[in-house]
Amino acid sequence: MIGPRYTPLVDSLPATVPFVGPETQERRMGHPFRARLGANENGFGPSPRAIAAMAAAAGEAWMYGDPENHDLKVALAARHGCKPGNIVVGEGIDGLLGYLVRMLVSEGDAVVTSRGAYPTFNFHVAGFGGVLHPVPYRDDHEDPDALIAKANEVAPKLIYIANPDNPMGSHHPGQVLADMAARVPDGSLLVLDEAYVELAPEGTEAPVDPDDPQVIRMRTFSKAHGMAGARVGYAIGAEPLIRAFDKIRNHFGMSRIGQAGALAALGDTTWLAYMRRLVGASRDRIAEIARANGLMPLPSATNFVAIDCGGDGAFARRVLEELVAAGIFVRMPGVAPQDRCIRVSCGPEPEMMAFAEALPGALLRAR
Amino acid sequence: MIGPRYTPLVDSLPATVPFVGPETQERRMGHPFRARLGANENGFGPSPRAIAAMAAAAGEAWMYGDPENHDLKVALAARHGCKPGNIVVGEGIDGLLGYLVRMLVSEGDAVVTSRGAYPTFNFHVAGFGGVLHPVPYRDDHEDPDALIAKANEVAPKLIYIANPDNPMGSHHPGQVLADMAARVPDGSLLVLDEAYVELAPEGTEAPVDPDDPQVIRMRTFSKAHGMAGARVGYAIGAEPLIRAFDKIRNHFGMSRIGQAGALAALGDTTWLAYMRRLVGASRDRIAEIARANGLMPLPSATNFVAIDCGGDGAFARRVLEELVAAGIFVRMPGVAPQDRCIRVSCGPEPEMMAFAEALPGALLRAR
Repeated sequence: MIGPRYTPLVDSLPATVPFVGPETQERRMGHPFRARLGANENGFGPSPRAIAAMAAAAGEAWMYGDPENHDLKVALAARHGCKPGNIVVGEGIDGLLGYLVRMLVSEGDAVVTSRGAYPTFNFHVAGFGGVLHPVPYRDDHEDPDALIAKANEVAPKLIYIANPDNPMGSHHPGQVLADMAARVPDGSLLVLDEAYVELAPEGTEAPVDPDDPQVIRMRTFSKAHGMAGARVGYAIGAEPLIRAFDKIRNHFGMSRIGQAGALAALGDTTWLAYMRRLVGASRDRIAEIARANGLMPLPSATNFVAIDCGGDGAFARRVLEELVAAGIFVRMPGVAPQDRCIRVSCGPEPEMMAFAEALPGALLRAR
Repeated sequence: MIGPRYTPLVDSLPATVPFVGPETQERRMGHPFRARLGANENGFGPSPRAIAAMAAAAGEAWMYGDPENHDLKVALAARHGCKPGNIVVGEGIDGLLGYLVRMLVSEGDAVVTSRGAYPTFNFHVAGFGGVLHPVPYRDDHEDPDALIAKANEVAPKLIYIANPDNPMGSHHPGQVLADMAARVPDGSLLVLDEAYVELAPEGTEAPVDPDDPQVIRMRTFSKAHGMAGARVGYAIGAEPLIRAFDKIRNHFGMSRIGQAGALAALGDTTWLAYMRRLVGASRDRIAEIARANGLMPLPSATNFVAIDCGGDGAFARRVLEELVAAGIFVRMPGVAPQDRCIRVSCGPEPEMMAFAEALPGALLRAR
């Protein structure tokens, strides 16, 4: 009896997982984390209006969500000053990146990104047989000039950049990205991941024409809106590109509960402003804890702070492992030289206190 | 300026949509449906315990769902008498079918299904360049012998069958499917879609070994459990096949709220038993309405009833259009001879009354 025959591509893929979840680590340890500060989740939570909308939608969960995501797209278009036809809603940015890579990347196609940028994007590129051409970070920033230079060299289907950046928290002014967009080579598409942009300084949002056929921007309700578990992301791009998602996307893939929550969250601008203040204060708090321990916090335009542990990647890894052993869930960049840092997500004060308590001992044991 | 370059395959795909949602129809009509009986949703709703669990999880939606779906898989394994490693949880059966097709089907690969069976499966097969080899229904049943015969002829990667069947509502005893599974040719995988099986007569569940490398079974919380809008499905199969999903799936694709709801729904066996009675009574009610109008309801093992309108596909289409115009959302099979029927989902009595009120006029106008 001969079992299923995988495609040659899928057969060749490793069974790697982009991120191990905190629940998996908790099961291995046999106890829960004291502080969940590793996945850039927003522990301040969703807007109360979003929570209420999701709780109400739970009772209506017998209905599929609207496959067109009509109401949410109309509201998003009004927010972004574009047409609903410029917007596709999907199962988080991860889901949308998967669709996008599938639409453009055949086996052997080139893709440009930064070495140490978002691993889930790389997972999707590998999953469709694309060939990654990574360029180095420059002073802990993704480097638009290097990305464009590499793109001119390899003619990629996609060029990925996140602004603000994950995992370093750095950012460029939006105009830098707009200038970059103007230099995208023919036949390439710039994927501008703005997952954290609502938490960045004014002017970080790139002034890009939604109808620019060479740019697609990714947004999410997982970060500033605190709804990672509801799985709602969206992309803004030219209408022909947005329509092409309909050829392949899971039309009934969106949770009706998530749709309702996202619509309510979008309307609660007061909460979003409050969240910007809370996250800003929490960044300061993390930086203060880092400095109190002789470490160097990097500037952040996101809801996390990369902390330079002052040694190499192996040392930062030991610090991270000691923190995890002490019940503090944090993560770290994957490649040098960014991997001299650990990455700590913002969160409420009890989590900050737990981190502050655990850090000195973790450093001591790591040394 | 040259925009994005799609893969040749995606470029060749039509912008077809497997199903137009009822919300789209409502927006076109300018008013809501009086009865939502077209998508085989379960208007009796989720278990109160599931609703409570989802409402509670809304407040914790700042956390990503567990990417391993551990707790739900353990509970499902206990229910099915298999190992958690035999189960993959995904974004509804639609999402899992998309992953499965991607894993196995390269451009030009053969796939066998029934003519007029689940369109979303066909959408995924076309989306990965597979070639569908449909066989006819036999007496409004999918035909295991014809499917196996075709498989022996074309050596497909996948053979799809739903038991009970959608859109006809017919079913085979589970032993027929087990016998079919034993005849799957080397190198083919049987996809047994059991979306409706909890609502079918005892003995419909196929007695298939979870470790059979040539069968994967699909299940969902969208039908009997009434949670279509929460997007939780799962598949049961041999561990190597189940592990292969990890190579490509959206690991953080599951809603935390849906995970919580599914776990609670699974525990509420009293509600499921109650639902079987409600759905059974509603099937009888639909049949009674059909007969009162001189139409022939087909036997159903699902939460919908196919009603033979006594004419051809064009006539049934007119009946459907008149029902829709009267505010009754129903659908119908897509191909002859099954398209002599309309398909009406079970639901609470107010929706049944609306259907009963609208049907005589719709028939009159259709004639």
